[in-house]
Amino acid sequence: MSDVTTTDLYEVTMALSYLRERMTEQATFSCFVRDLPPHRGFLVAAGAESALAYLSRYRVERDDVRAFAEVLGRPVHDLMPLLGTRFTGTVRAIPEGHVVLAGEPLFEVTAPLPQAQLVETVVLNHLSHQTAVASKCVRCVLAAQGHPVVDFSLRRTHGTAAGYQAARLAAMAGFAGTSNVAAADAEQVPAVGTMAHSYIEAFENEEAAFLAFARCHPDPVTFLVDTYDTESGVAAAARVLHALDRGDGAAVRLDSGDIKALAFHTRAILDAAGLPQVRIVASGGLDEFAVADLVSAGAPIDVYAVGTRVGVSADAPYLDSAYKLVEYDGRPVMKLSSAKVTAPGRQQVFRRPGCVDVIGMADEPPPAGSMPLLKTLMRAGVRCTPAGRLQDARERLAKDVAELPATAREIRSPVPVRATVSEPLAALTGQVRQRIERAVLGDVTGPT
Amino acid sequence: MSDVTTTDLYEVTMALSYLRERMTEQATFSCFVRDLPPHRGFLVAAGAESALAYLSRYRVERDDVRAFAEVLGRPVHDLMPLLGTRFTGTVRAIPEGHVVLAGEPLFEVTAPLPQAQLVETVVLNHLSHQTAVASKCVRCVLAAQGHPVVDFSLRRTHGTAAGYQAARLAAMAGFAGTSNVAAADAEQVPAVGTMAHSYIEAFENEEAAFLAFARCHPDPVTFLVDTYDTESGVAAAARVLHALDRGDGAAVRLDSGDIKALAFHTRAILDAAGLPQVRIVASGGLDEFAVADLVSAGAPIDVYAVGTRVGVSADAPYLDSAYKLVEYDGRPVMKLSSAKVTAPGRQQVFRRPGCVDVIGMADEPPPAGSMPLLKTLMRAGVRCTPAGRLQDARERLAKDVAELPATAREIRSPVPVRATVSEPLAALTGQVRQRIERAVLGDVTGPT
Repeated sequence: MSDVTTTDLYEVTMALSYLRERMTEQATFSCFVRDLPPHRGFLVAAGAESALAYLSRYRVERDDVRAFAEVLGRPVHDLMPLLGTRFTGTVRAIPEGHVVLAGEPLFEVTAPLPQAQLVETVVLNHLSHQTAVASKCVRCVLAAQGHPVVDFSLRRTHGTAAGYQAARLAAMAGFAGTSNVAAADAEQVPAVGTMAHSYIEAFENEEAAFLAFARCHPDPVTFLVDTYDTESGVAAAARVLHALDRGDGAAVRLDSGDIKALAFHTRAILDAAGLPQVRIVASGGLDEFAVADLVSAGAPIDVYAVGTRVGVSADAPYLDSAYKLVEYDGRPVMKLSSAKVTAPGRQQVFRRPGCVDVIGMADEPPPAGSMPLLKTLMRAGVRCTPAGRLQDARERLAKDVAELPATAREIRSPVPVRATVSEPLAALTGQVRQRIERAVLGDVTGPT
Repeated sequence: MSDVTTTDLYEVTMALSYLRERMTEQATFSCFVRDLPPHRGFLVAAGAESALAYLSRYRVERDDVRAFAEVLGRPVHDLMPLLGTRFTGTVRAIPEGHVVLAGEPLFEVTAPLPQAQLVETVVLNHLSHQTAVASKCVRCVLAAQGHPVVDFSLRRTHGTAAGYQAARLAAMAGFAGTSNVAAADAEQVPAVGTMAHSYIEAFENEEAAFLAFARCHPDPVTFLVDTYDTESGVAAAARVLHALDRGDGAAVRLDSGDIKALAFHTRAILDAAGLPQVRIVASGGLDEFAVADLVSAGAPIDVYAVGTRVGVSADAPYLDSAYKLVEYDGRPVMKLSSAKVTAPGRQQVFRRPGCVDVIGMADEPPPAGSMPLLKTLMRAGVRCTPAGRLQDARERLAKDVAELPATAREIRSPVPVRATVSEPLAALTGQVRQRIERAVLGDVTGPT
């Protein structure tokens, strides 16, 4: 499968029709999230980097044309107008890591209409998926209140490419490491890991397993202590750490049962064994809700390893995202269908400190003290800024989150921050609505 | 990123330790789902094909060793024992498409311990993700009660590779088509699609858009009618279909608002316009729950297009899956940690008609009238059966689902079918538990 055939069929049929009708003027599509899912006070912009990489390499090849013809049951000749299509447009987007709010344009594509349409599916996929996961990850960091959080999600993400993104976005959100070797290596993120229950089971007993692990690996070591019985597991770990004098930097991991109670019990055993420096790592079905509960209960946990539920953004595995035509050939457009009204025209987000945002028209003067969030990242199909660095996104995110109202950062029932709409954009929305109601609906059936 | 570095770090550190300890005897790991998520009466086995493809091509190359050393901060020399590692083991698995139940081994890997450990993360990822999505898809087919269901999920799956799998698994589950061109082309599934709201908006009005689309595309055409106002959109579609005499095979699509009410209204308009043959396609946030409601209300909808919620298995985006060591060097093993007890030894699922299953030991005689579900699909690292065909999996699934108790097929609050455990396996579990309690825990602290 190629990058180009990875698309919804209708992008192809629409593009063909546009070419036939000679509708190749500039179109602007805006990608945004209509509403936040429950338990989200804000979102984190993500996906722009991989979407830009996709646009950079987009080119309809002969095999793509053949595949289009095949699935449409049409002669290859009919599809030839698409051959060689590249993306030659402009992209204005909010750089990864910024806090974004409902309704704010994340990524705006301006290109000849057929091109802008053909890339819809993949652009929306990248923005939507990555923004959902990044937004989940930062909540874990907030819940941990300064304790390190690490990513163990690769085994249950939706395929391994999604696992790579989860690790990358977790790092952007401020995680201290990931178990994902490929992502750690490529993104320069600390790789972390301990041992599995299977490792313990492969030995005669826990002590033998811990000794073997320590023989092979330099400090720090982390021993998994809950394979059979946590109390005896911790005791075995303590004996081995003492015997080898390897307590410094070492940790034990709890992965099942009543983590809170076991953490207190484990801490007591370690302290009584003269190992106050040995840390406790908790894992096993954790997410920001569980982490918040453990932190607020004062559980003596030093590192939180979150996995599956975070990697798939389990409570909000998708966003109510859209890629909407807002302008064609200089004419602002919008749709009116119930509950899905969208603002027309090219837009900008003007941010004042504290994530106080106004959504306005792209060319209106910024309100006093505000900064525009959307930057031009691609012109004529070529990136016009260097590829975004993960470290920069991480810093943007940390800064934005720190400025949010505390109520937006709550783990349970946060109060979403809402952007306002500028007067010029509100006026344009009204005008376009009137024009459509007159021109399209004969001034009769305005939707309620 | 390579196939090989796409793994959890601990697989690497454990494998290194096994090699150092010369623990390279045969190990068997079993991949299974402990418990079903809510609203699931059964699961659908999936993921074996891509997991086998991964195992077939697994080979630790020099760049992988370099990456391992890099993330571990160790000299490359330390990681050299892993260089050249291939997967040379045996895989017994339930072929894709079979109904499976909680606790049943889906995929059993037997190989030298380091190999079997290294492949854990990816095998578990493929089985877990694909089984979750396939299980969601078949529920949509059940909910639609014979109406065609099509897949529109690509735009919001967790990356585009997950979108490909969603399309493939939807086809396995009995969907009539997918919007995903790449998947339709590669998997020989019908490609389906209509038009976007943006297409309508790019024209002066709906009628102009419908006319242009019909000019470009042969029958059948589907017109999207809810961009501005559904009633006027349907009327415009009817005028165009009449004017062009293109009603046969044509359809209109409803994508927003109160779909049930709009479907009745749309049907009435089309019938009154003398177009009883024009079908109605519904889309927009549908899943099996919404489809079941529409079908039970008798909504005059001919085709259900489901997308996001199905492609990400929104109400159960992950499964409680595991990849557990069950035997090492001929010795059955298990862990005892609370709530995660696993049965030891190599296993088999014996199925009698109606998905009446017994989980037994691999080498026990099959109960009368039963068939073993796990087949040997790979020996010595090489597939020993042809790659599974999607059509065969689709037929297996249709047959198994038809045999399930009706209560297991319910969309809301289904009654999960439960497998029983054979006497020999229950006896072995008891023996291994006793052995571990004696040997590991000193016969003192058996977990409750």
